[in-house]
Amino acid sequence: MENFASLHYFYALVMLTGALYFFYLSRRPKDVPNYEYLVAILIPLWSGAAYLSIAFGQGVLEQPERTIYFARYLDWVVTTPLLLLALAFTAIIYTEKKSKTILFSLVAADVFMILTGLIADLSSGVVKYVWYVLGIIALLLILYIIWYPLRQIADRSGHKLSIHYRRTAAYLTCFWILYPTVWVLGPSGVGLTQQTVDVLAFIILPIFSKVGFSVLDLYGLRRLR
Amino acid sequence: MENFASLHYFYALVMLTGALYFFYLSRRPKDVPNYEYLVAILIPLWSGAAYLSIAFGQGVLEQPERTIYFARYLDWVVTTPLLLLALAFTAIIYTEKKSKTILFSLVAADVFMILTGLIADLSSGVVKYVWYVLGIIALLLILYIIWYPLRQIADRSGHKLSIHYRRTAAYLTCFWILYPTVWVLGPSGVGLTQQTVDVLAFIILPIFSKVGFSVLDLYGLRRLR
Amino acid sequence: MENFASLHYFYALVMLTGALYFFYLSRRPKDVPNYEYLVAILIPLWSGAAYLSIAFGQGVLEQPERTIYFARYLDWVVTTPLLLLALAFTAIIYTEKKSKTILFSLVAADVFMILTGLIADLSSGVVKYVWYVLGIIALLLILYIIWYPLRQIADRSGHKLSIHYRRTAAYLTCFWILYPTVWVLGPSGVGLTQQTVDVLAFIILPIFSKVGFSVLDLYGLRRLR
Ligand SMILES: CC1=C(/C=C/C(C)=C/C=C/C(C)=C/C=O)C(C)(C)CCC1
Ligand SMILES: CC1=C(/C=C/C(C)=C/C=C/C(C)=C/C=O)C(C)(C)CCC1
Ligand SMILES: CC1=C(/C=C/C(C)=C/C=C/C(C)=C/C=O)C(C)(C)CCC1
Repeated sequence: MENFASLHYFYALVMLTGALYFFYLSRRPKDVPNYEYLVAILIPLWSGAAYLSIAFGQGVLEQPERTIYFARYLDWVVTTPLLLLALAFTAIIYTEKKSKTILFSLVAADVFMILTGLIADLSSGVVKYVWYVLGIIALLLILYIIWYPLRQIADRSGHKLSIHYRRTAAYLTCFWILYPTVWVLGPSGVGLTQQTVDVLAFIILPIFSKVGFSVLDLYGLRRLR
Repeated sequence: MENFASLHYFYALVMLTGALYFFYLSRRPKDVPNYEYLVAILIPLWSGAAYLSIAFGQGVLEQPERTIYFARYLDWVVTTPLLLLALAFTAIIYTEKKSKTILFSLVAADVFMILTGLIADLSSGVVKYVWYVLGIIALLLILYIIWYPLRQIADRSGHKLSIHYRRTAAYLTCFWILYPTVWVLGPSGVGLTQQTVDVLAFIILPIFSKVGFSVLDLYGLRRLR
Repeated sequence: MENFASLHYFYALVMLTGALYFFYLSRRPKDVPNYEYLVAILIPLWSGAAYLSIAFGQGVLEQPERTIYFARYLDWVVTTPLLLLALAFTAIIYTEKKSKTILFSLVAADVFMILTGLIADLSSGVVKYVWYVLGIIALLLILYIIWYPLRQIADRSGHKLSIHYRRTAAYLTCFWILYPTVWVLGPSGVGLTQQTVDVLAFIILPIFSKVGFSVLDLYGLRRLR
């Protein structure tokens, strides 16, 4: 393995800065419920710690032909449910009866998606792509829940929330589609792109889909009222 | 290991069919709360994926003397709490104040039971049976909760629910007692029965205790109102 | 490894006795909510099972230079969140709107603390102490939550609860500070103290911080009303 340690340290630093910034925002909550801030703070902290373990060489599995970054899945299995919860909380922010069934379905499909990704990364041949396709199906289910039941709830909660929800959901959708794309083109999949591209992509993407996402979501919510 | 792949593929297919059927039922919910359908759908999907990993040879640990099907525990650790929750939700369906203590105790005892089973399967000698007995104690606790506190709640919720609850709980009890029995007779325990019998049993049993159970539960609930 | 099996059996027995005693108390709950008893019973049962696995030689990783007791982390990752929940439930016992954000923060910081401890124990050199320091930061966060937001809630709930909460929180704080101290002095850290001291410390400490803590908490709560 080449040594990408400094890149991963840099990422951990960005995440820490993000967490501190959201903590700072939470001191003037402007009527945004405090769990929205909590989720925004926990996501980069957890992800930063996961990438730190990669920088230390502990979160990777060096195999003869390639390096498996399993700490990424450790990161995602915690942060992606939190991101979905943040989005869902935004949709149901004015709704009295919080639909636990929707929240539970989102988290279940998401955890399943990340697990299949991990198993796919550890598999080879046809089996790899069976797990990958199962992960894709879970992702489609998540996108369905985001764009149908949840969007309807947001739409019913007034024009301003509807606009904000749609923008945030669109942002999330764009970035989340890039993950399986980068994954399948890189060493985990068919191996078209090189290790370096893969490492860089999984450093740049999460900055946008974690810190960027929370900035978009929290600013929108703060402007709502 | 002999190749039981096709049997496990068959099982995965049955589970998929079950999930699709419960999804179909959920389109005409007939006043049954949507989380009852959600649980009925998640159980076979998860179990199907676990058995798929067995068919691929990934969910097993081949040891010199025998094969350990650890993916079974991965299946159970998720599906058995869901089955218990489904039963408990049925008991408390008309109850205003949902007793979280009962739900939490059920899930805690159940996860403990499955973990002890996994450790027992990986152990040998006396130690194996110590863990096994601890698992049995947890099972007895679960059955106690099902037949005392939960049954009382169901009984207080009217004659029709009481009948339905007792039938569903009896069905579950019968099948759940068979699991440790098959386990201890097979290669995981004393090794009286052969591998083939064991594999077949753990394909036939879960079809009844998962899909069969949910059919019984959902039909009963749909007929209630 | 020297054989400390009998010490660990003794611990498991103490835990079992504790659980049975709390079960006995729960039969005359004296207006204390039943989840307080449930938590007090689950903690020693889980911990006893974890130490049983150490006694069997399964919960340890024998390395050339030293023995890693990873089952301790398995114990802590379940019991420390439960201990914090017990304390938090005490603080908010009269509060109508239970603050889920506080509970969630406590559990998140705590699970993070235990995981960093496990990784630190498996690491060496500088990396070990980076993880250790991250764990310490999480502990400081936990203590902050206990002594600021939670204490304020307790204070607002009347003089008697305030006194009881402060005493229980002080007890917990003292013992929890000893854990990272013993850890870092022992073979997991700089290795000043010997294995025997370490094993003894991690048998004596948890008796006080688990059974002792629950006795203090439950007696106080029972006397409140
Ligand atoms: C569908 C799919 C995947 C999707 C992963 C996604 C959508 C990850 C999102 C991560 C985020 C948003 C991290 C935080 O920034 C995998 C696991 C790559 C491979 C299996 C198929
Ligand atoms: C008591 C006991 C067991 C019980 C297992 C059970 C009760 C499993 C139920 C599984 C179901 C219902 C699966 C879904 O269909 C083990 C782990 C075999 C061994 C340890 C002792
Ligand atoms: C801060 C810190 C630690 C703290 C552990 C604690 C506080 C454990 C408490 C355990 C209890 C209370 C068990 C039950 O009795 C570790 C993981 C040793 C090392 C990493 C830094």
